[in-house]
Amino acid sequence: MGETFDVVGIGNAIVDVLVQADDAFLADHDLSKGAMALVNQGQAERLYAACGVGLETSGGSAANTLAGIAQLGGSAGFIGRVRDDQLGEIFAHDIRAAGAHFTTPAASQGPSTARCLILVTPDAQRTMCTYLGASVNLEPADLDLELVRRAKVLYLEGYLWDSEAAKRAFIAAAGVIRAAGGEVALSLSDGFCVERHRESFLDLVDGHVDLLFANESEITALYGTDSFETALVQVRGRCKVAALTRSERGSVVLAGEATHLIEPFRLGELLDTTGAGDLYAAGFLYGYTQGQPLERCGQLGSLCAGQVVTQLGPRPQGSLKELVAQHLG
Amino acid sequence: MGETFDVVGIGNAIVDVLVQADDAFLADHDLSKGAMALVNQGQAERLYAACGVGLETSGGSAANTLAGIAQLGGSAGFIGRVRDDQLGEIFAHDIRAAGAHFTTPAASQGPSTARCLILVTPDAQRTMCTYLGASVNLEPADLDLELVRRAKVLYLEGYLWDSEAAKRAFIAAAGVIRAAGGEVALSLSDGFCVERHRESFLDLVDGHVDLLFANESEITALYGTDSFETALVQVRGRCKVAALTRSERGSVVLAGEATHLIEPFRLGELLDTTGAGDLYAAGFLYGYTQGQPLERCGQLGSLCAGQVVTQLGPRPQGSLKELVAQHLG
Repeated sequence: MGETFDVVGIGNAIVDVLVQADDAFLADHDLSKGAMALVNQGQAERLYAACGVGLETSGGSAANTLAGIAQLGGSAGFIGRVRDDQLGEIFAHDIRAAGAHFTTPAASQGPSTARCLILVTPDAQRTMCTYLGASVNLEPADLDLELVRRAKVLYLEGYLWDSEAAKRAFIAAAGVIRAAGGEVALSLSDGFCVERHRESFLDLVDGHVDLLFANESEITALYGTDSFETALVQVRGRCKVAALTRSERGSVVLAGEATHLIEPFRLGELLDTTGAGDLYAAGFLYGYTQGQPLERCGQLGSLCAGQVVTQLGPRPQGSLKELVAQHLG
Repeated sequence: MGETFDVVGIGNAIVDVLVQADDAFLADHDLSKGAMALVNQGQAERLYAACGVGLETSGGSAANTLAGIAQLGGSAGFIGRVRDDQLGEIFAHDIRAAGAHFTTPAASQGPSTARCLILVTPDAQRTMCTYLGASVNLEPADLDLELVRRAKVLYLEGYLWDSEAAKRAFIAAAGVIRAAGGEVALSLSDGFCVERHRESFLDLVDGHVDLLFANESEITALYGTDSFETALVQVRGRCKVAALTRSERGSVVLAGEATHLIEPFRLGELLDTTGAGDLYAAGFLYGYTQGQPLERCGQLGSLCAGQVVTQLGPRPQGSLKELVAQHLG
């Protein structure tokens, strides 16, 4: 038996293309602000051709989280599929450079590495158009089950539900980690994604998830309500811990009867919210797998999210370890 | 005869990979801070594997300049060679998204699109390692001579001198534009590049260049002196205009007996100096081809350079037009 991992994640392996855009561009292209829309290759190319100068950076929701955990000093592994192309090399480089274990073989045929066009509006909101490409080819056979077995926590992004094969891979992995005594964490990813798969997520949260991550629009979509308070009542007790983020209002962490209200960190000018939820989960899970109290886990999440929104792109460019020493030492 | 172009440029078509690094990393890899080193594919891969999370953006010295001219509202064309790969698509998208005319066919075989690993140190200096890839395949036969003929100014980067074929392509293009009554501008690019090709550059500046762009280390390297003052005396009168940049000390523009001292613009925190010289040339040439006085050309250059050093990467992410209206309206 090899080393153990604090967290192993499964998600879409994506390279982001960040572009500045205005509200009129979103309206012209029927894009819903703040949401993630799936696009096919032709749509992706047409949108890209219409938009401005880009900045490319590795992304993918769970991948951002695992990279963050590794940058914090946790042991992290990621499972996700790229193609053997230039963007796939960039993805593999960046997640390994962050310190995460990544060995999923690159596909040698089929669609190219997944790309997400992220339109950043002047209010720092991001609106995403994802071409899933090679990432949907992740299948149960690709899973490194030995890696999953060695994790304390298996982390999954809700976006996987948009691919039947990836969803099957996740369910297989969840069975493996539970048998090995580990826990399952799920991020709901996106309000529209929750609406597409609501019944399935409800079932999952009830019986198979230990730690749930969601923002306000996702948790209210899950319980079919407009009220965050109502959603809180609904989710309480359905999983061991629910960490619910509310942008500039901080987050709420529920565990049994306990409720922790976590303040946000404001570390500089708000530039780009891409990766805020992913880095919240990174900080939280890093603390959680170090055995920290839930309140501190929430603070670690808030701090990492507070950092990533002051820069372009979802992978922290500075040292998260130093940030923690400085603010939560 | 079609539309005319304010400036047409020939240069290496490169995608930049920006990575944060410290001085120890530069020392460990024998890299000379602030300079550009050429690396082969194997060296490029080893360096990339050793460094941290990257951010990819279109680059290339002359390409940055032409993109800047287009963003300012000038009519700009670029000639340079990419491969038909993902990085080549990114390069082509970004230069067209900036508004520049770019039609050089992508190579369908041979080395991949050029990449430049840019190590940004905490002092905002950049140190570059360039794998020239497909860009060295630019040959006289690839030149769109009709495009060159229609330019007011033909702009070249000194880096082209590192490829014999590209150098021949440039010399052919310079002959064409001179015959058509246009002018030739040259950027010396890098002190080490000047040292590699000193005799050739001296000969060129004396007889074939109307506008010369250089920074302090380049112009002193050209005249084999440690003294900027000595270099000023040497270069005066050898070309129509010499625009010499000195980082935080602004720039000096020489034309005949006239000397214009141009103040720098400080628009925010210094983050990354990548592209500073390229954007100075963009502002200057935009003003020059609009028939502005040389002092204002220098101010336009200073302003554009002052903007690009407050962001990551060499392609301005905001609106240069608005910046000009705000500061030099």
